[in-house]
Amino acid sequence: MPELRKDPIIGRWVIIATDRAKRPNDFKIESADMAEVTPCPFCAGNEHMTPPEIRSIRKESTEANKPGWDVRVVPNEAPVLHIEGDLNKRPHGIYDMMNGIGANEVIIETPNHIEHMSSLTSEQIAKILTAYKERIVDLEGDKRFKYVLIFKNHKPAAGASKIRHCRSQLIALPACPKSVKGELAGARKYFEYKDRCVFCDIVSQEIEDKKRLILDIDGFVAISPFAARFPFETWILPKKHSADFTSINEDSIRELGKVLKEVLLRMNKLLSDPPYNYIIHTAPYRRPKEGYWGTIDADYHWHIEIIPRLTRVAGFEWGTGFYINPTPPEEAAKFLRETKV
Amino acid sequence: MPELRKDPIIGRWVIIATDRAKRPNDFKIESADMAEVTPCPFCAGNEHMTPPEIRSIRKESTEANKPGWDVRVVPNEAPVLHIEGDLNKRPHGIYDMMNGIGANEVIIETPNHIEHMSSLTSEQIAKILTAYKERIVDLEGDKRFKYVLIFKNHKPAAGASKIRHCRSQLIALPACPKSVKGELAGARKYFEYKDRCVFCDIVSQEIEDKKRLILDIDGFVAISPFAARFPFETWILPKKHSADFTSINEDSIRELGKVLKEVLLRMNKLLSDPPYNYIIHTAPYRRPKEGYWGTIDADYHWHIEIIPRLTRVAGFEWGTGFYINPTPPEEAAKFLRETKV
Repeated sequence: MPELRKDPIIGRWVIIATDRAKRPNDFKIESADMAEVTPCPFCAGNEHMTPPEIRSIRKESTEANKPGWDVRVVPNEAPVLHIEGDLNKRPHGIYDMMNGIGANEVIIETPNHIEHMSSLTSEQIAKILTAYKERIVDLEGDKRFKYVLIFKNHKPAAGASKIRHCRSQLIALPACPKSVKGELAGARKYFEYKDRCVFCDIVSQEIEDKKRLILDIDGFVAISPFAARFPFETWILPKKHSADFTSINEDSIRELGKVLKEVLLRMNKLLSDPPYNYIIHTAPYRRPKEGYWGTIDADYHWHIEIIPRLTRVAGFEWGTGFYINPTPPEEAAKFLRETKV
Repeated sequence: MPELRKDPIIGRWVIIATDRAKRPNDFKIESADMAEVTPCPFCAGNEHMTPPEIRSIRKESTEANKPGWDVRVVPNEAPVLHIEGDLNKRPHGIYDMMNGIGANEVIIETPNHIEHMSSLTSEQIAKILTAYKERIVDLEGDKRFKYVLIFKNHKPAAGASKIRHCRSQLIALPACPKSVKGELAGARKYFEYKDRCVFCDIVSQEIEDKKRLILDIDGFVAISPFAARFPFETWILPKKHSADFTSINEDSIRELGKVLKEVLLRMNKLLSDPPYNYIIHTAPYRRPKEGYWGTIDADYHWHIEIIPRLTRVAGFEWGTGFYINPTPPEEAAKFLRETKV
């Protein structure tokens, strides 16, 4: 009998197909035509091929836009939103619109021509996470922005271009995205009812249950969420309550670097180098500091969602927000838990 | 300058990339390996290859599960939900779940081995729409169900199996899907504020504006929605207010058959036979008949959404519900309006 499971945060129902559960080898990884783009604009030595850097983590006394960096942040050459101009919010008959103002940056994750983030050291991954944090903090100064989304598209089937150089992207948005709003509203509803953070409750239950737990290292857990939409969908959450990713300290960043590397290594081995996306879910800019439910940040909890792209999304999913997941999260977690890298 | 446009129903923002607008030839249609499955279980004469029919539209004095049918509805042989059993709603720690109870039927749209719905006559399409209506009405008798979703996956890249025989699917669900709830809530909010149906307002504005209008035939319009998420996304709406698809009469079904055929023909020609999905959006079962906003059905409006699958959805879209559409709806509508078939 398949199961219908409800996501405890946003209330989305997911069909978990327990009958004919798909195992790692049942997924066919699309092998994209990966003709290499040369020279690679993201490699050290080719800094002139990108727009000038916005920020870099680099060796002392090296010059901007020259080699010597570990992580380099540059504007996206073909940005989806433009950084300059006014929002000019306006109606169009019954409709609403504004100018496509926003930031779109590329975080180049290594000076070397390396495709997989999991091949980097956990110290290097910690530097990348530090760059994420710094960029989110810096962009808050721009009052036009309400949210910063940080995400990675690994391989073309996950939306990346064909350049095989490890990187992620940042988009600063002038409107809080709908699904972020949904997550915040759902988490608040739970908080109002229970006086507890729903994510904290998830972390507790998963640590106790163990069935959906993949890793429990230092201050972080990696889990297969109870109502996972996708096979091998994995969330990394800090055990300690925190709404805002930018509140993370250096020790925690180092721990997170280890956990992220380990999860990606295992996924890579178990699922034969799948395309994947990850997204950092964090609180929006300028949330009001208090509400009748107490300090407002008590109700939300930042985390990272990693989604290997193993299945196609069909009409059913688009039409309903109702997902069919052919791999029960308990099995996905077991496989990932037992993978040795 | 790209534009940010807000969907007037559910409040989702979409980035319309006006700078480098993609035209029909800019999309690469994935050619799937379409090795034919033979014999085809959906062809007349092979009725024994499917589970026994639930309903058919067939010539008088022909026998069930024998040739003589025009449209045939059968249970899905590998259903995503099971028809028999109790829901058994229950907690799992902090989580909620129930049994995967539901109906999953296949609507076989022609007795002949035809791949494209657009190759069928509009009279045949009207028969298919009649079968949809009858199945939704019939399943309402099962009190376990809250919503019936009718959708088509055309070609493997849109989620279909490799059998090249024109069909659609029905899934009856024990919970109202999240995105349906979002649409109902958004439409109600608009109604409370304006005392008008948001879809009726959209139809009026699009007929007057003409820029996003593709077809205006009899009682229906086909439009490119103002905040379309996908290139060449197309909606078909009845001009006359109606919340419930099953309230459609025979004349309107014939008209809808013509409009649907015409839209699919044009899309097929313009975009070189793209994979696509369509979904019927209709009111859920057993909505309370009245509310303080008057008759509750005044706020919703059934329609069909057609989505050609031309782009990949990447991390950004998953993470935010924020879509990037590289083809402005005005250009998409112009192309579709001017396509001669």
